[in-house]
Amino acid sequence: MRNEKLLKTALGLLPKLIYKDVSPINMTETQYLSKGDSIIIDFGDHQVGRLAFDLKSVGSHADAPAFLKIHFAEREIELYENPAEYKGWISASWIEEEQIHVDVIPSRVSLERRYSFRYVKIEVIDISDKFKLYLDNVVCTSESSADDSKLVPLNSDNQLHKDLDRVAIKTLHDCMQLVFEDGPKRDRRLWIGDLRMQALANYETYRNYDLVKECLYLLGALTNNEERVGACIFLEPEPEVDDTFMFDYSLFFINTLLDYYKQTGDVQAVNDLWHVCKRQIELAKENLDENYVVRDSDKLGWCFVDWNLMLNKQASAQGIFLYALEAAIELAQITGDVMAEEEYAQDYLKLKSAANSFLFDEEKKLYVSGADRQVSYASQVWMILGGAVEGNGAVKLIERLRQEESALTMVTPYMFHNFVEALIMIGEKDQALKEMEEYWGGMLKEGADTFWELYNPKNPNESPYGGTIVNSYCHAWSCGPTYFLRKYFCN
Amino acid sequence: MRNEKLLKTALGLLPKLIYKDVSPINMTETQYLSKGDSIIIDFGDHQVGRLAFDLKSVGSHADAPAFLKIHFAEREIELYENPAEYKGWISASWIEEEQIHVDVIPSRVSLERRYSFRYVKIEVIDISDKFKLYLDNVVCTSESSADDSKLVPLNSDNQLHKDLDRVAIKTLHDCMQLVFEDGPKRDRRLWIGDLRMQALANYETYRNYDLVKECLYLLGALTNNEERVGACIFLEPEPEVDDTFMFDYSLFFINTLLDYYKQTGDVQAVNDLWHVCKRQIELAKENLDENYVVRDSDKLGWCFVDWNLMLNKQASAQGIFLYALEAAIELAQITGDVMAEEEYAQDYLKLKSAANSFLFDEEKKLYVSGADRQVSYASQVWMILGGAVEGNGAVKLIERLRQEESALTMVTPYMFHNFVEALIMIGEKDQALKEMEEYWGGMLKEGADTFWELYNPKNPNESPYGGTIVNSYCHAWSCGPTYFLRKYFCN
Repeated sequence: MRNEKLLKTALGLLPKLIYKDVSPINMTETQYLSKGDSIIIDFGDHQVGRLAFDLKSVGSHADAPAFLKIHFAEREIELYENPAEYKGWISASWIEEEQIHVDVIPSRVSLERRYSFRYVKIEVIDISDKFKLYLDNVVCTSESSADDSKLVPLNSDNQLHKDLDRVAIKTLHDCMQLVFEDGPKRDRRLWIGDLRMQALANYETYRNYDLVKECLYLLGALTNNEERVGACIFLEPEPEVDDTFMFDYSLFFINTLLDYYKQTGDVQAVNDLWHVCKRQIELAKENLDENYVVRDSDKLGWCFVDWNLMLNKQASAQGIFLYALEAAIELAQITGDVMAEEEYAQDYLKLKSAANSFLFDEEKKLYVSGADRQVSYASQVWMILGGAVEGNGAVKLIERLRQEESALTMVTPYMFHNFVEALIMIGEKDQALKEMEEYWGGMLKEGADTFWELYNPKNPNESPYGGTIVNSYCHAWSCGPTYFLRKYFCN
Repeated sequence: MRNEKLLKTALGLLPKLIYKDVSPINMTETQYLSKGDSIIIDFGDHQVGRLAFDLKSVGSHADAPAFLKIHFAEREIELYENPAEYKGWISASWIEEEQIHVDVIPSRVSLERRYSFRYVKIEVIDISDKFKLYLDNVVCTSESSADDSKLVPLNSDNQLHKDLDRVAIKTLHDCMQLVFEDGPKRDRRLWIGDLRMQALANYETYRNYDLVKECLYLLGALTNNEERVGACIFLEPEPEVDDTFMFDYSLFFINTLLDYYKQTGDVQAVNDLWHVCKRQIELAKENLDENYVVRDSDKLGWCFVDWNLMLNKQASAQGIFLYALEAAIELAQITGDVMAEEEYAQDYLKLKSAANSFLFDEEKKLYVSGADRQVSYASQVWMILGGAVEGNGAVKLIERLRQEESALTMVTPYMFHNFVEALIMIGEKDQALKEMEEYWGGMLKEGADTFWELYNPKNPNESPYGGTIVNSYCHAWSCGPTYFLRKYFCN
């Protein structure tokens, strides 16, 4: 489905990108490059932008093209992997490496594509032996729709908090492009799971409300045949929804809209997009069994929750449905849709009751998921965020969870974000802060300029894709610390 | 040295390129391309130009860039060599292979660089498995400064001659760019050795006199500190002479100017460039010993003659100096430089006498070269072209040469051209025609669309560079057949 009215509104909100020329802070010492030589250029911080340099020569007039390999890396470690040997399951086309020929020397070399990087390795694959090359006037023209002049400083003297805030903001900044991208290296597009968190961080920092509105209207305008909100949206060659649909992601549209309304009071947007929210609830209800329990599925990716193939998603999905219904009830009040409000309130009670009847293990006193009654952090977190358990019950649930050695842990900053949010929600702010400081602080210790898509404290250089060269080390769903710090801790 | 006046004249003569869109005649049958698939596109004839195509997809919206390898080949055989395995001594940067990422699909892909090719292999290095690719509207925008509307048909019904003429003209056509290039694949610049032959072929076909004039003025304008004419000229980033200087190539400037004058009667050009000719003679004379014999040298590349590292160049150089002096005497007459005319006439006699005294083996009755008294085709050919031996003496010389099994043979079409020219000069037109038909006809049998830089009838796919992928299969110095046929045989 394509709602032209919503799409027109969305496209009218496309931001202007802000460009900034950045020079390297350091280049390796090799002055003149012959065949096989290479140079590593360090821009000092993470950049999203386009590279240009003067390619000059000493010796005879260049009598053959220069054949260069250019490898961009968000972390230096990526430079020590050989892209030619990458055999992972994600497409190698994401590896930010180019081979180019430069016919005219000297000349200005301007790479057309946008890259996400701090380091650039330039290797001379071949030139003739009549000349040597050197680089001059190396510049990255960085681009973002985030306006740094709008930023207010963090109200804190704690160096760790300042660092967490700075790196989280840089992560957000570099993902703020024509839409909120998930990662500027990969996949470079609007994913609703990331959007929800980016919007929250944005409200505490850049306050670019129009960018959130644009993304909501895009997601609302471009749905599948059933009017289901897609997991992500492509902008080019023209705006289109992906054919990936996930139970949780479609529902997050509702929460993201409510968050936006709370910041802006934009009733018009709520009215424009209310039918989209209602349809998502309708579609989600088709997944309920006769007991109001979300049916489990073995279809890969039916519900995202976390990047963990072992994780059973059923209980999380139940919690997320509750979480979305709560938001939908508020939105129904805003739009004055009394019928819907009443319906969702009843649905909410039935789902909550079902969660506590059918997805709660009375012996372990933990929520369980799937036929194998799996215990996981994700399930408890979402039951808390969805309000299936509250107050002291929730505090005790987390205590029991921490004792339960079999509990499946979290693998992404995305799921950690939800965990921290749940801890704050139940009043455990100290625990929340400690978790955040340890987890995101761990990335800082690894030298992160931006927060990563994936972080396993026990194996920081792990890649589930088969190589760090396809990992995304600037990933929007990791930008939570600035939101948490500014909203809950440093105000 | 940089003579701004001559340079200005040269640059004022830069031709406009003529562009022509060419579609493929054939594409391999694979319709939809997944990771690892490839397609071979055949444009039906040799092209020099730029490639563009629509890259489209079926399946889901492309969710990762397309990573393509594009290999251009003048002969199909090049496609079956792996550029990554090329280890030859010439720079791999000449291999016409690109790796590109296409971020937006569908989109029009237009490669920036100019390539020389008939075949294009496009291989999908990687894409995601959510879509397949296909190509549409594949076009080569070919470019040349040769105007086919100026061509007159060959006056012949002999199919072999028609084919030789056609392929020679195509070779010339594709090398006629902003200058007469040696080869549009490699080295893509003005070399005087090629220019002399291209100009001769051009006079019988396109008659683009201005392009010859431009090249002569470039060579005359840009010389080394001693005012020596360079072996080749670069146009970009600005016109500059290479630091390669060869005894024979510098002297050919004189013959090329005389040939040009004979076609055009352009006395102004002769007057403008006469000082350049005189200086080349002066410099060449510095290489003479006390007996008026060109001193031999073991400096690699001091004199080109032929692409054969075994060849001793001394006797050829003596013949070439004679050949240039003859032209210089005629030019001196045209400019009215009586002093020079007299001087060169005396020089000519001394060099001729020296050739027959010191470089002629009285026993073998063949010219010999170097301390080892090497016998080669090149030495005899250049002594004939230089007039050291004439008439029946020259006919007998060739007869003895053909009997001499130790005689070093020729390896390039360039040297074969001089051989054919020498046979015609001594009245052996039948032999000349037969040699031409066999040698260039051999390339036709191998399916040549254009004539090659190198051709060994005994090993047609030989590459002295370590791989056919760096051979130049459209090379100006091979365009002789159209000149010979039209000037001497089909008129």
